[in-house]
Amino acid sequence: MASAAALNVALIGCGFMGKAHSNAYAQVGHFFPHVRKIRRRVACCRGRAGLEALSRAWGWEGVETDWRRVVERPDVDLVDICAPNYLHAEMAAAAAGAGKIVLCEKPLANNVREAEAMVAATRSVPTFVWFNYRRIPAVELAARLLREGRLGRLYQYRAQYLQQWGPDPSRPNNWKMSRRTAGSGVNGDLNSHLIDTAMMLLGPIREVSATLESLLPEKPDPEAPGSTYSVDIDDAVLAQARFADGTLGSFEATRFATGFQNDNSFAVHGEKGMLEFHFEDMNHLTYAAVSGDPDLRGRRKVLPPARGPVDSPNFWKAGHPIGYEHTFIASLADFLDGLDSGRPARPTFEDGLAVQRVLHAIERSDRERRWVGTGL
Amino acid sequence: MASAAALNVALIGCGFMGKAHSNAYAQVGHFFPHVRKIRRRVACCRGRAGLEALSRAWGWEGVETDWRRVVERPDVDLVDICAPNYLHAEMAAAAAGAGKIVLCEKPLANNVREAEAMVAATRSVPTFVWFNYRRIPAVELAARLLREGRLGRLYQYRAQYLQQWGPDPSRPNNWKMSRRTAGSGVNGDLNSHLIDTAMMLLGPIREVSATLESLLPEKPDPEAPGSTYSVDIDDAVLAQARFADGTLGSFEATRFATGFQNDNSFAVHGEKGMLEFHFEDMNHLTYAAVSGDPDLRGRRKVLPPARGPVDSPNFWKAGHPIGYEHTFIASLADFLDGLDSGRPARPTFEDGLAVQRVLHAIERSDRERRWVGTGL
Amino acid sequence: MASAAALNVALIGCGFMGKAHSNAYAQVGHFFPHVRKIRRRVACCRGRAGLEALSRAWGWEGVETDWRRVVERPDVDLVDICAPNYLHAEMAAAAAGAGKIVLCEKPLANNVREAEAMVAATRSVPTFVWFNYRRIPAVELAARLLREGRLGRLYQYRAQYLQQWGPDPSRPNNWKMSRRTAGSGVNGDLNSHLIDTAMMLLGPIREVSATLESLLPEKPDPEAPGSTYSVDIDDAVLAQARFADGTLGSFEATRFATGFQNDNSFAVHGEKGMLEFHFEDMNHLTYAAVSGDPDLRGRRKVLPPARGPVDSPNFWKAGHPIGYEHTFIASLADFLDGLDSGRPARPTFEDGLAVQRVLHAIERSDRERRWVGTGL
Amino acid sequence: MASAAALNVALIGCGFMGKAHSNAYAQVGHFFPHVRKIRRRVACCRGRAGLEALSRAWGWEGVETDWRRVVERPDVDLVDICAPNYLHAEMAAAAAGAGKIVLCEKPLANNVREAEAMVAATRSVPTFVWFNYRRIPAVELAARLLREGRLGRLYQYRAQYLQQWGPDPSRPNNWKMSRRTAGSGVNGDLNSHLIDTAMMLLGPIREVSATLESLLPEKPDPEAPGSTYSVDIDDAVLAQARFADGTLGSFEATRFATGFQNDNSFAVHGEKGMLEFHFEDMNHLTYAAVSGDPDLRGRRKVLPPARGPVDSPNFWKAGHPIGYEHTFIASLADFLDGLDSGRPARPTFEDGLAVQRVLHAIERSDRERRWVGTGL
Repeated sequence: MASAAALNVALIGCGFMGKAHSNAYAQVGHFFPHVRKIRRRVACCRGRAGLEALSRAWGWEGVETDWRRVVERPDVDLVDICAPNYLHAEMAAAAAGAGKIVLCEKPLANNVREAEAMVAATRSVPTFVWFNYRRIPAVELAARLLREGRLGRLYQYRAQYLQQWGPDPSRPNNWKMSRRTAGSGVNGDLNSHLIDTAMMLLGPIREVSATLESLLPEKPDPEAPGSTYSVDIDDAVLAQARFADGTLGSFEATRFATGFQNDNSFAVHGEKGMLEFHFEDMNHLTYAAVSGDPDLRGRRKVLPPARGPVDSPNFWKAGHPIGYEHTFIASLADFLDGLDSGRPARPTFEDGLAVQRVLHAIERSDRERRWVGTGL
Repeated sequence: MASAAALNVALIGCGFMGKAHSNAYAQVGHFFPHVRKIRRRVACCRGRAGLEALSRAWGWEGVETDWRRVVERPDVDLVDICAPNYLHAEMAAAAAGAGKIVLCEKPLANNVREAEAMVAATRSVPTFVWFNYRRIPAVELAARLLREGRLGRLYQYRAQYLQQWGPDPSRPNNWKMSRRTAGSGVNGDLNSHLIDTAMMLLGPIREVSATLESLLPEKPDPEAPGSTYSVDIDDAVLAQARFADGTLGSFEATRFATGFQNDNSFAVHGEKGMLEFHFEDMNHLTYAAVSGDPDLRGRRKVLPPARGPVDSPNFWKAGHPIGYEHTFIASLADFLDGLDSGRPARPTFEDGLAVQRVLHAIERSDRERRWVGTGL
Repeated sequence: MASAAALNVALIGCGFMGKAHSNAYAQVGHFFPHVRKIRRRVACCRGRAGLEALSRAWGWEGVETDWRRVVERPDVDLVDICAPNYLHAEMAAAAAGAGKIVLCEKPLANNVREAEAMVAATRSVPTFVWFNYRRIPAVELAARLLREGRLGRLYQYRAQYLQQWGPDPSRPNNWKMSRRTAGSGVNGDLNSHLIDTAMMLLGPIREVSATLESLLPEKPDPEAPGSTYSVDIDDAVLAQARFADGTLGSFEATRFATGFQNDNSFAVHGEKGMLEFHFEDMNHLTYAAVSGDPDLRGRRKVLPPARGPVDSPNFWKAGHPIGYEHTFIASLADFLDGLDSGRPARPTFEDGLAVQRVLHAIERSDRERRWVGTGL
Repeated sequence: MASAAALNVALIGCGFMGKAHSNAYAQVGHFFPHVRKIRRRVACCRGRAGLEALSRAWGWEGVETDWRRVVERPDVDLVDICAPNYLHAEMAAAAAGAGKIVLCEKPLANNVREAEAMVAATRSVPTFVWFNYRRIPAVELAARLLREGRLGRLYQYRAQYLQQWGPDPSRPNNWKMSRRTAGSGVNGDLNSHLIDTAMMLLGPIREVSATLESLLPEKPDPEAPGSTYSVDIDDAVLAQARFADGTLGSFEATRFATGFQNDNSFAVHGEKGMLEFHFEDMNHLTYAAVSGDPDLRGRRKVLPPARGPVDSPNFWKAGHPIGYEHTFIASLADFLDGLDSGRPARPTFEDGLAVQRVLHAIERSDRERRWVGTGL
C-alpha cells in the first residue's frame, strides 16, 4: 500500500485554490488511507498576511515568499502551482528542472506555446492538471456509462458554464481581469473545464467555430470609487464543435449569466439514452433510457455514491451529499495511486495541452470568423 | 364588441395543426366573448377519411378536397393554411387574389423567395402566421418585462428546442422528411419558433454563424419493414447570433435530443435580472433579480395568470394550468382584435418573412462555414 | 357510437365551476366525437349579469334565474349542479324527482345526512360527482400502475393540497367562508379531492385521526374597508388514516400554505416502487422502481399522453401539455360512455357519499381528539 | 484566539458516526482556525479491525476497546459518544463523573428516564448533542429569517424525513433494529432530527397526536440466507403537533419511502412568506415572499453561503456546494466557541432531553390513540 516515505509537498499560491489544495493534502489520507503519506512542507506566496493565515489554518510546516527558493528546496518532492496563469510555465520548468513532481492548476498556461514548453520541460517528471470536475461522482458515472456504450451512438453534446459575477461592481481588478496575467477570460477560466470534461467523455475535439465576447470593457473599480479599470479579456464564449468521432458539440461559458452562481453543466444525447449533469446539483446525474416500458420513460435523477478506495469505501453513505472539495481530494488520490502504480492519472500536462489547443482554436476562430481545426 | 357579421373560415389541412386550429375557432368565442363571431364554414384536405373525421369532430359545415375551390368560394372570408410548407405560397397567393384574409402555419414558406412572394401577394389583405408560442402567458410576461426594461441592458440570449423523435424507427416518411416539401428539417420546423420568439422579445437578428446536421440520412421505413428511406433534411441546427441591439445569442434546435419530448426553452440575462422559460413547464416563468436582499436572491418560478379579455377575464383562476391549445386560442383572439381595431396583430406575413431570412442566413452560414448577415 | 338524440343539459351555477362545466359540454364532442351529442339548453343562476355573461360566452340556448323551474322543464334531460354546497341536496332530489340525470359538483353535500338523502333520492337516475382530478392523465396512469400491482405491497400514502389564498385580504366573504352554506372549509373544498383520489387509487379509508384548524376567525372585509367578517370554517386539516387494505395514509389540506397556488399532490410508496404527482406540474408523473441497474435508479418524470377515444385518439401529441379544463372534458366523456354502455362511470353519488363519510369522521375525530371509524 | 492548551478528545464508536466525527475533529481547525486546538487522543470501540482502520485513516493517537478505561484516562478532556443508543446514559455518567466534557450522538438516549439521568449526571460539565442538521447553511438562514420575524405570524410547519432502506433485504440485523439497543426505530433515528430542527426554529412542541407503524416485523437476514429476524421497532411515524406558540405542525419520518435516499425536509408557512428545505438539495433554501410585485412572486431557490469564522470566512465561495460533513465541522466549531465564550452552543443535553420528551409523547400517543402533552 502506501510507500514508507512521505511525499513532501510545496504549494505555490494562497488564493481560493491554495485553500482547496491545502484541504486535499490534509484530507486525502483520511478518505483514501491506502495512498502515500503527504507532508505539507511549505506554502508560498508573495502576500505575507495571506501566507501566514493559510499556513496556520492548514498546518503547513514552513512558508516562503520567493517561489524560486521553494522549487529548489531539497526537502520538497512535489511542487503544486496555484499561482496566476502567466507564471505556470516558468514555475513548472524550474520545478521539473529541479526534479520535482509538478502539479498545476488549470488552465495549464496562458497559451499553446507556453503549454508546449511546459510539456517539454516536464517530460522526466510526473505531472497533473487540476481539472477537478472530472472527479465528481456523477461525472465519473457518466464516463463509465459512455465507456460501456450505454448510450449507443452519440448524436449531440452540449455544455454550459454559467456564472454571474462578471458585471458585479464589487469585484476587484485582479490578475483574472487581464490578458497578460490570465491569458484569457472565461475561455481559459471556465470553458477549459467544459472542454476537458467533454474530451474526457467523448475524446478529442477536431474543429471549432466560436465567438468571444467582451461585455464590459470598462468596469467600476471598487478600490477606487468613481474610477474604472479597463478589461481586455473575454466575458463570454460560444463554440460549436466537431469531435473526432463525428459528434456535434456546443459550448457556452459566461460570467454574465445573471441568476446562476456556478452552473457547470453538460448533456449528451445518444441513440440509447441521454445523460445530463449540473454542478449546482452536483450529487445527481440525470439519465433517460430509450428502452423499458414506453409508458414509463422519463428523465430520472440518479444519486451516484461518493467514491472511496475499492477495498474499503471510506466514505459517507449514499444519500449524504458531498461537496466541491471532494473533487480535489479524489483527484489527488488518483494522482497518488498513479504514482505508485506507474499508470499516471489523467489529466497530465499532455491533457492540459490538448485543452489549450482547443482554447486556442476557439480564439482564432473568433478572430477569423470561421471554423478552425484544433490539430487534435 | 363583436361585429354583426360572422367571419366565415376555410381551413386547409387535416393534420395535427388542423385539429389545433379547429379547436381555436371553436373556443375563441368562449374565452374571448367580445371577438367577432366565427363560422367554421369549410374544411379541406386531400385525404377523404381524415377530412370526414375532422369535420365531424369539430363541426365544420362543409368539406372540400380541392383547395382551389375553397379559396374561391364566395362564402369564405378567411383562408387558414395548414398544408405542407411547399404549398403555402401558392395557396396564399390564390386566397389573397380572391380577396380572402390569409392565415398560415409556420414556417411561412419553403424559402425566402416564396416568403417574399407571399408578402407581395397578400399586401391588400390581413395576414397572420401561427407562431403560437408567442401567446403563452409566461412568454407574454417575459415580453412585458423586457419591454418595461426590467432586465436593464441585455447581455446574452439562449434558446433551445429539444425533441427526441428523430431517430424513432416508428415514425413514417411524411412530407416533413423531405427538403422539397418541407423546405428544411428542424430549421424550419423548430428553429423558426425559437427565432420568432427571440425577435419578438429582443428585435431583429443581424448576423448568424450556424451548423446544420443530418444525423440519419437513411431511416428505417415503418411502412415497409426491412427497407429504409432517404432523408435530405437537417436533424439538428446550432447557431450563434448577433441581434441588432448588439446582444449575443445562441440557438439550438434538434429532433435528436433523447430524453426530451418537446422542450422549447429560452433564457435571457441582463444587468438587472434574468428570465428563463421551458415549454415542458409552460405555466411557469423563471425570474431572478439583481436587487433586493442579497441573501435572498435566487431563481424563482412565477406562475403567470392565463389571459382573458381585459374587461372580463373569462378564464381559469391562477394556479390552474392551461395547455398547448390556449396558445392558438389567444393567437386567434389577438388576430380578431386586430381586424377590428385596425392595429394588426403580430406576427404578420412580414414577420414570417423576417424569420425566413434568418433561417436562410443560417443555411447559408452552414454551407459557407462563416458568419452571414440576415439583411434585417 | 353516438345515440341519435342529443342530451339536453341544464346547468345550475354561474361561478368558476359554471365556466369549467360549460367548457366541458362545448368541448367533449370535439375531443371524444363518439359520445352522445350535448345540447346546452339552459343555464341558471340568481345573478342576472353573471348569467347573461356565461350564457353569451358559452352559447347556452336559454337562461333561468329560478332553479326550480329548470329542474322541471320537460326539454331538459340532465341537471348539473354547480350551486353552493348547501343547495345540492334539495336540487338533486328535485331533479331526480323529475326524472333527470343528476350531476353535482364536489363535495356532494354539506354533510353525511344530506349526502345519504341525495343517494336515496337519486336511486333511479344516473349520477356523477365532479371529482375532476381523477381524469388527469398522470393520475390515470398512477391508477393503472397500482391496479396492475406494479408497486407491489403498499407501505404508505401521502397527500397534500396546498393553497395560499386563505389570508389574502382581498378575498370577499362568499358562501365558501360559512359553515352554513359550505358545510366546511378546506375539508370539503380541498380535502375531499384528496380523499376521493386516495380511495380511487387504494380503496376505502377505514379510520382517521384528524385536526382541523381555523387560522383567521376574523378576516378583513374587502367590500367594507376597515371592518371584518367572522369565519366559522376550517382553514387547514391534517389527517392520519388507515386504509381498509392496511396501508397507512396522511393527508393535509390548507388554504394557508403561503407560496403555493394550487398544489394538489400525492405520493405512494410500495415494495416495488413509488409514484408521486403534483398538480402544479400536472403533465408529469414521478415514478421510481426498485429494480433495474442499482446504479441507475432514481425518480423519473414520466410524461403520460393525454387521452382520446381508443379508436381515434383525437388529441395533442405527447409533449404538448394539457390544462385543467381537460379534467372536466374527460370526466364528461367517461360519464357519457357510461350512460351508453350501462357501466356507470365513477364517481357516482355513492362514491361522493363515501368521501363525505370520511370527511365526517375527520371532523368528529377533531372534536373528540381520537381515532374515528368511517364506516367504510 | 485559540487557547494555548489543546483539547484532548476520546471518541467512542467506530461506525458511520465515528468517521463523521473523526473528520470534524481533523477539519475544524482548517475551516475555523480561531478555535481551540484539538488532539485526536484515543478512539475506542469493541471491534478491533474497525478500530484499527478508523484510527489509521483518521490519525487517532491511540486506541482502546474498553470504553471504561477511556473515560477515566487523565489525558482525555472530552468524551464523544457515538456508541449505540442504549449505552449513551451509562457512558455519559461515567465520563461526567470523571470530569470530562461530554458530547453525544442523537438521539440522546433510549428514553426520557435515561435522558433525564444524563442531564442530571452532566450538570457540572459542558455537553452537546450532535443534531448536526442545525448547522446546514440553508437551515441557519431559515433560523435567522424566522428570528427576524421575516415570515410574520406562522400558520403551519411541515417536516418529513424520507428514507427507503427499511425493506432492503441486504440490510443486516444490527443494533438499530432492536428496541432494547436503539430505544426505537425511526422515531429516535430520523424523527428526532425533525423535532430538534422544528424546536430550534419555532420553539417547544406542546402536544402531539401520533401513529407509529411497523411495516415488516420479520425481515430476511442477509447473514443467514433463508431465515428471518424479528424487528420490534417502528418503521414509520406520523405526528400532528401543536407548538407552544400555537402553530400547527405535522411530522412524518419513515424508512419505507421507496424512491428517497435521505430526504430530510421542512416547510413553514407564515403571513409574510414561506421557507422550504430538502436535504437532498442541501445547498439551497426555497423562499417565497408575500410582497413585491404580485406578478413576479414565486418560490425561489436561494443559495446561502457556507459559513466560516466571521473575521475570516475561510471557506469555499458561494456557488461551490458543501456536503454532509460540514454539518459536523460547523457544529464542532460552535461547540468550541461556546467553551471559550462561556455561552454554551445549542443543542445541549437539555435540548436533547426536550427532543426525547416529544419522542416519548409520540410513542404514548400512538399507544393510547389520543393527543398527549409533551410537558414542554
